Amino acid sequence: MSPWSAPPPVPPELAAAFREYERALMADDLAALERLFAPGPTTLRGDGDGLLVGSEAIADFRRSRGGARPRTLVQTHVQVIDADHALVVAVTENRDGGRGQQTQLWARTVDVTGRRAWVITAAHVSTPPQALDTRVWRVVGDPLVPGSGAGPLLGEKLAVKDLYAVAGHRRGAGNPAWLAEAAVEQETSPVVQALLDAGADLTGITRTDELAYSLAGTNAHYGTPPNPRAPYRVPGGSSNGSASAVSLGQASIGLGTDTAGSIRVPAAYQGLFGLRTTHDCVDRTGLLPLAERFDTVGWMTRTADLLRAVGDVLLDSDPGPGGTDQLVVVPALLRLADDDVAAAVRTWAYERGARTEDHDVSSWSQWPASYGDLQAHQAWAAHGDWLRGRLDVLGADVRARFAHGAGVTEDDRVRAETILAGAAEVVRGLVGDRVLVIPSASSVAPPIGPDLAASTQRVRRATFRLVCPAGIAGMPALSVPLRTSDGLPCGACLVAAPGRDRDLLSLAERLTAR
Amino acid sequence: MSPWSAPPPVPPELAAAFREYERALMADDLAALERLFAPGPTTLRGDGDGLLVGSEAIADFRRSRGGARPRTLVQTHVQVIDADHALVVAVTENRDGGRGQQTQLWARTVDVTGRRAWVITAAHVSTPPQALDTRVWRVVGDPLVPGSGAGPLLGEKLAVKDLYAVAGHRRGAGNPAWLAEAAVEQETSPVVQALLDAGADLTGITRTDELAYSLAGTNAHYGTPPNPRAPYRVPGGSSNGSASAVSLGQASIGLGTDTAGSIRVPAAYQGLFGLRTTHDCVDRTGLLPLAERFDTVGWMTRTADLLRAVGDVLLDSDPGPGGTDQLVVVPALLRLADDDVAAAVRTWAYERGARTEDHDVSSWSQWPASYGDLQAHQAWAAHGDWLRGRLDVLGADVRARFAHGAGVTEDDRVRAETILAGAAEVVRGLVGDRVLVIPSASSVAPPIGPDLAASTQRVRRATFRLVCPAGIAGMPALSVPLRTSDGLPCGACLVAAPGRDRDLLSLAERLTAR
Repeated sequence: MSPWSAPPPVPPELAAAFREYERALMADDLAALERLFAPGPTTLRGDGDGLLVGSEAIADFRRSRGGARPRTLVQTHVQVIDADHALVVAVTENRDGGRGQQTQLWARTVDVTGRRAWVITAAHVSTPPQALDTRVWRVVGDPLVPGSGAGPLLGEKLAVKDLYAVAGHRRGAGNPAWLAEAAVEQETSPVVQALLDAGADLTGITRTDELAYSLAGTNAHYGTPPNPRAPYRVPGGSSNGSASAVSLGQASIGLGTDTAGSIRVPAAYQGLFGLRTTHDCVDRTGLLPLAERFDTVGWMTRTADLLRAVGDVLLDSDPGPGGTDQLVVVPALLRLADDDVAAAVRTWAYERGARTEDHDVSSWSQWPASYGDLQAHQAWAAHGDWLRGRLDVLGADVRARFAHGAGVTEDDRVRAETILAGAAEVVRGLVGDRVLVIPSASSVAPPIGPDLAASTQRVRRATFRLVCPAGIAGMPALSVPLRTSDGLPCGACLVAAPGRDRDLLSLAERLTAR
Repeated sequence: MSPWSAPPPVPPELAAAFREYERALMADDLAALERLFAPGPTTLRGDGDGLLVGSEAIADFRRSRGGARPRTLVQTHVQVIDADHALVVAVTENRDGGRGQQTQLWARTVDVTGRRAWVITAAHVSTPPQALDTRVWRVVGDPLVPGSGAGPLLGEKLAVKDLYAVAGHRRGAGNPAWLAEAAVEQETSPVVQALLDAGADLTGITRTDELAYSLAGTNAHYGTPPNPRAPYRVPGGSSNGSASAVSLGQASIGLGTDTAGSIRVPAAYQGLFGLRTTHDCVDRTGLLPLAERFDTVGWMTRTADLLRAVGDVLLDSDPGPGGTDQLVVVPALLRLADDDVAAAVRTWAYERGARTEDHDVSSWSQWPASYGDLQAHQAWAAHGDWLRGRLDVLGADVRARFAHGAGVTEDDRVRAETILAGAAEVVRGLVGDRVLVIPSASSVAPPIGPDLAASTQRVRRATFRLVCPAGIAGMPALSVPLRTSDGLPCGACLVAAPGRDRDLLSLAERLTAR
């Protein structure tokens, strides 16, 4: 007979443990919460952002998030399984509105202190839904701006990075001080308008790393958008909101920009397709600049065919310079990435007929510094007037980059330009009329946690070496989603001669067809 | 020892049942899904909209909702408790993006067919979050329009019914055809502007029953907003989106309108405070009319003090005609409501010193027809030009009301005006300088299900008798949230002489102070 058709009474110790859990949660009593979760690698805790596996991951999460919102219990249901196991399902009501649900499997077993006690072995938490996820979006609508009602992108949902002009809205650029002073735009950026004309509905305006000047996807003011394919890891930036919106299924086309990886890195971290276009091949009117020498329009999708369909709308119908589909892998460039990422890219490329070419890329190691100097110099030229005397409106990481830009001298600039002019020759020569395959980013998405600041710095440096060659040479770069052996998203980046955007889009479609 | 530190193998029959459940869910195989849930009153299924208790409630829900979105399993974790019990936690990825989680307690017991089998006794479902809940909102932002940055409403979040002008946005009126033809508003309604000036941020624009012409809170085009305080029941309308936004905690002030109960009914159904203001005492500029003879501005909040604070901003500082705080209960009016609602209102009023007065209200039963005629006549006068020849752009219920309005003759109108003029005298005479306490609606929120259309009709008729007296007499009416003995939200409505809005707001604050 089912144990709950004639339910045994709820053990008083279980009821006490459940009350203690609610108390500890409201008080953010981390020690008590850790004690109330079963120690070990199979303990589970899941919510809308993802599932945590293992008591250590759960404890780490609690330390980094702060307490829960004040709430009261509305209903509690207990299914007693036996003397040592029971399921508790509780409905809670937040003091500031909305209801949530917790489902917890409790067991009487040995807790983290070695005592026999009732502890949670699995918890599933639903908190009250918010009006919008403000980590991902600044404004959303159903739709925010309707498309033309016809065209190749009919039915698609467009997420637009908060750098593009949308008539009737301001450009927020990922910074509250910027947003507060921004004027309402009178005209929509041509690139956005072209997508609307092609039938896509504009769902909303997405967050960005501040002034697009970061690759992590964090934002000191608005929080870190979730990465649903790699929960509790950074989403990648700076087109972070557009990437997360697409990965979450809240949009199908994520419009962003790529100055130094801002499409390729979030695409890789979140398992999306992403295209950085040839420099100057797509109109940047209405787009807030970061460094116009390198800024490009880009977009991300969940499928290669939609990535290509967007290209059909935004790219010149000119077929470009032409070339071959021969994939080329340079081992020294693969080695710039972590082993798991390099292995995924290598395997994927070889299975598709890639040729290996050994090149000495040791001299390339000087390029990132020049690229960074020139990018910072241009960023300061674009925004220094606004930032001068109030760099503290920026988060620490972005502030440091602008501060660096303020200090780049004319001599520095000339030297950097000279080095990059030579570098562009080298890259164009190596790639030729073929397609270079490199890792889109040096690693999988770094985990959010106490070590994030350090790992972000390290990853940024390593990833910069992989993303700057396309930027230096103004080349298109298309990130194809792969997975490491651990199942985490990473990306293979296809780099080709300037103007071969359409070739890359077709190639990606063919290479990833099932 | 904990059973999962050395986990026993997963019973093959459980694995098969779990796979069958995913298959049945994708196929919307209702019979299989019913068989896979444990029969009985303690079986549980919860998601973001609320918890269903009992296998019958779960089966009813499945019949009314259609299948789940296509998805694949990403991770599956099993905690085997004993030979007959196991918890399964699965992470799923939707084909169109986003991840969800299912937690299920399975037991080997007797299923609905009488066989011994693995069935679910409790399920907790998290589906991928959407960009915005399109049942509640049309547009949202963080904020959509910032407030002045100072004032008594600083920090409050305003939800605005999609009938008020917000500069830069269209008015959608709960109907897609209307929205498609609407012009972008150049000026914000004074009432909305006053709230912005007082410091509130405008979070977004909320759904409404079509052209505000319903009390149910359903909408044929955009769906039914959730009612978190009474899950799987209607939210009440026509200010349904604003009400649900406040109840969900996504806004703190829900701006709406009340022509014939459109504030009072959703407030009652969702456990909110709501004020319908004295007719013509708050500026309706920029507000799409339904029937201007009765239309009023109104708002809903979770607390009496915020309801009053909004009144301090929107109401004339004129103290009004004055009067007493004497509460009056008329038993014949209480009897217009269901017993559970009448009992809650009676008890609440008597505990606060209400006086009973017997009045013969049998003649009042003719008022709703006259009120309905005049409302329909005015609604047709306002919107007939637009609706003529395309009534089919409206859902069935609202269409029937407009069609009725088209048939109201001049004789009907004059007769209705005459009856209502007399009725207004009667109501004003009865209320005098006191405060009448009546049920805000005749029942708790009707459940969503196969009987909804019939119950909506019945409830609308009964509720109309309770809401029309204040409308007839142009009186303010304030709904105070109560609960029935079953714990469901209902409302006590305080009705007073025209101009006594501020008195009612203060009174509600005092009467509900802890």
